[in-house]
Amino acid sequence: MIPAPYLLYLGDAADELSVKTSRGLAVWRPELCIGEFRRPECAVTLGLPNLSFEEAASRGAKTLVLGVANAGGSLGPHLIEDALAALRAGLNLASGLHERLHHNREIKALAEQTGLQLFDVREPPPQLPIGKGRRRPGRRLLTVGTDCSVGKMYTTLALERALQARGVAASFKATGQTGILIAGDGVPIDAVVADFIAGAAEWIAPARETAGWDLIEGQGSLFHPSFAGVSLGLLHGAQPDALVLCHEPGRPHMRGLQGRDLPDLRLCLDRNLEAARLTSPDVVAVGVAVNTSSLSRDEASAVCQRISDDLGLPCQDPVSMGVDKIVDRLLQCFG
Amino acid sequence: MIPAPYLLYLGDAADELSVKTSRGLAVWRPELCIGEFRRPECAVTLGLPNLSFEEAASRGAKTLVLGVANAGGSLGPHLIEDALAALRAGLNLASGLHERLHHNREIKALAEQTGLQLFDVREPPPQLPIGKGRRRPGRRLLTVGTDCSVGKMYTTLALERALQARGVAASFKATGQTGILIAGDGVPIDAVVADFIAGAAEWIAPARETAGWDLIEGQGSLFHPSFAGVSLGLLHGAQPDALVLCHEPGRPHMRGLQGRDLPDLRLCLDRNLEAARLTSPDVVAVGVAVNTSSLSRDEASAVCQRISDDLGLPCQDPVSMGVDKIVDRLLQCFG
Repeated sequence: MIPAPYLLYLGDAADELSVKTSRGLAVWRPELCIGEFRRPECAVTLGLPNLSFEEAASRGAKTLVLGVANAGGSLGPHLIEDALAALRAGLNLASGLHERLHHNREIKALAEQTGLQLFDVREPPPQLPIGKGRRRPGRRLLTVGTDCSVGKMYTTLALERALQARGVAASFKATGQTGILIAGDGVPIDAVVADFIAGAAEWIAPARETAGWDLIEGQGSLFHPSFAGVSLGLLHGAQPDALVLCHEPGRPHMRGLQGRDLPDLRLCLDRNLEAARLTSPDVVAVGVAVNTSSLSRDEASAVCQRISDDLGLPCQDPVSMGVDKIVDRLLQCFG
Repeated sequence: MIPAPYLLYLGDAADELSVKTSRGLAVWRPELCIGEFRRPECAVTLGLPNLSFEEAASRGAKTLVLGVANAGGSLGPHLIEDALAALRAGLNLASGLHERLHHNREIKALAEQTGLQLFDVREPPPQLPIGKGRRRPGRRLLTVGTDCSVGKMYTTLALERALQARGVAASFKATGQTGILIAGDGVPIDAVVADFIAGAAEWIAPARETAGWDLIEGQGSLFHPSFAGVSLGLLHGAQPDALVLCHEPGRPHMRGLQGRDLPDLRLCLDRNLEAARLTSPDVVAVGVAVNTSSLSRDEASAVCQRISDDLGLPCQDPVSMGVDKIVDRLLQCFG
């Protein structure tokens, strides 16, 4: 487990997207976050106290979370310099970047010398099993998407909170670096060796012998030509009883692929359900979660109504409308 | 490139399945194989001269191919002992096992000392790109399957040979360890990091600017709950113009998964075509290749007729019947 509380690294970030992981922690684990670290040129803030490494350490911070993303997921020179300074100030380091802290000679040497820990959350656990597809006990819900970055993690966490508020046991199961940092554990499913995708999903949410739900964070989309293999392996391994479809209306093209349209919602949902039936024959859809942040309130409400009518499912924006209707449907189906 | 000719390692193999890779080389690259190495307890043979490492080296062998598979893909004690002896006799080593030659301290040290090379063909190339899904020039055919180990590699190689015999340029593109050893290059698609499956397939068969065909070896099955993610990523990245469906009639269950039925052929083909259309909208199926080795000649012929009638496609066993009808259909569709 990564020692808390955290100082959240923003570095020299120029935009919101590049601090996605730090923001995820600030939103979902505010009780663990005591400040942010910004270089002078940093263009964004999480609204937390801006602390130096020494100030953060003296206020009790235990770990600097390098919650930034850049092209290629590499450790840039600023980031390496700051990581070394944080170690000197007595902070452990956690990172979700592709390039591993452990692979940087200077960082590794200084961590050993100072007795501090390095957490590379993008590193999958060793010895994952091959997926078996055997029916296992317990209730599982998986979020699936029309595209990448449409709010699957946010939706899954919102469902966890809403179920718990109704007294239903629910456990968020993380499959991406931000989710893993929020949950404290999980498997970065996009970083496992291809043969083990489904096995990793089975490992993340093994047989659940108690009442309540495992809520599994989805990844990518069956209709994204770069990453659909990850999504399908996760779908088979997750063995979901229930699916929630996530979507961002008005997106001009699939993420990263200009000129490529998003799939039709009905087709996308049908194909996810059909593929899921391979390991979970009775799977049902219980709702649609949409990200309407680019729409006015009236437009958002009209879009949700239309999707709801088209698919016969409750449709909500988890941020602006909550997920109560989706939870109602889930509990109604699995009363 | 791995220096030829080869000595094929059989070791203490107890059955045919465990020498699959050595046999693949003996069948498809007989001109490169000058002998086999068998321990006294070995229960199988490829019909090649049984040579010691020293005999093989004196007859000109350059590389010992460790073409065996065992549970877990590990280097057992016999195999390590033999690998070291082969290095002492002056042979390079090539292996398709999961456990890498490079990770064995003794083997690595002796190879460095003797100036000989180690080839771990299960090691994917570094710096694979993310798949882009952009339409690229050239004709590509992909073999897909109802299950694992139904003859996709054999079929793909048979198509290469048959096309070349008709004067059509054709290049086999390997995606598994046996295929890579036969072709001399390729990418072990089941060993790449999950995010890069489609990208690896695009890398294996990049834009083809000349006439003729890239023939891409398929892996797994969209309907295999352990490995479907690999199959889908490969399907999207391959961007195939033509599919050939591979199947073994009479198989009692999906490979490794007792109690799990094989998919219906029509459904399996339809879902492969539909998924392929995401990156190759005009893809067509041109034939079905069946492995009828467990059937009598009459049964085999009846099965092929029935499948052919049901799917409206030529259906042949590449081993006993060749692939001429499938090639006819391919050339007819893309004349």
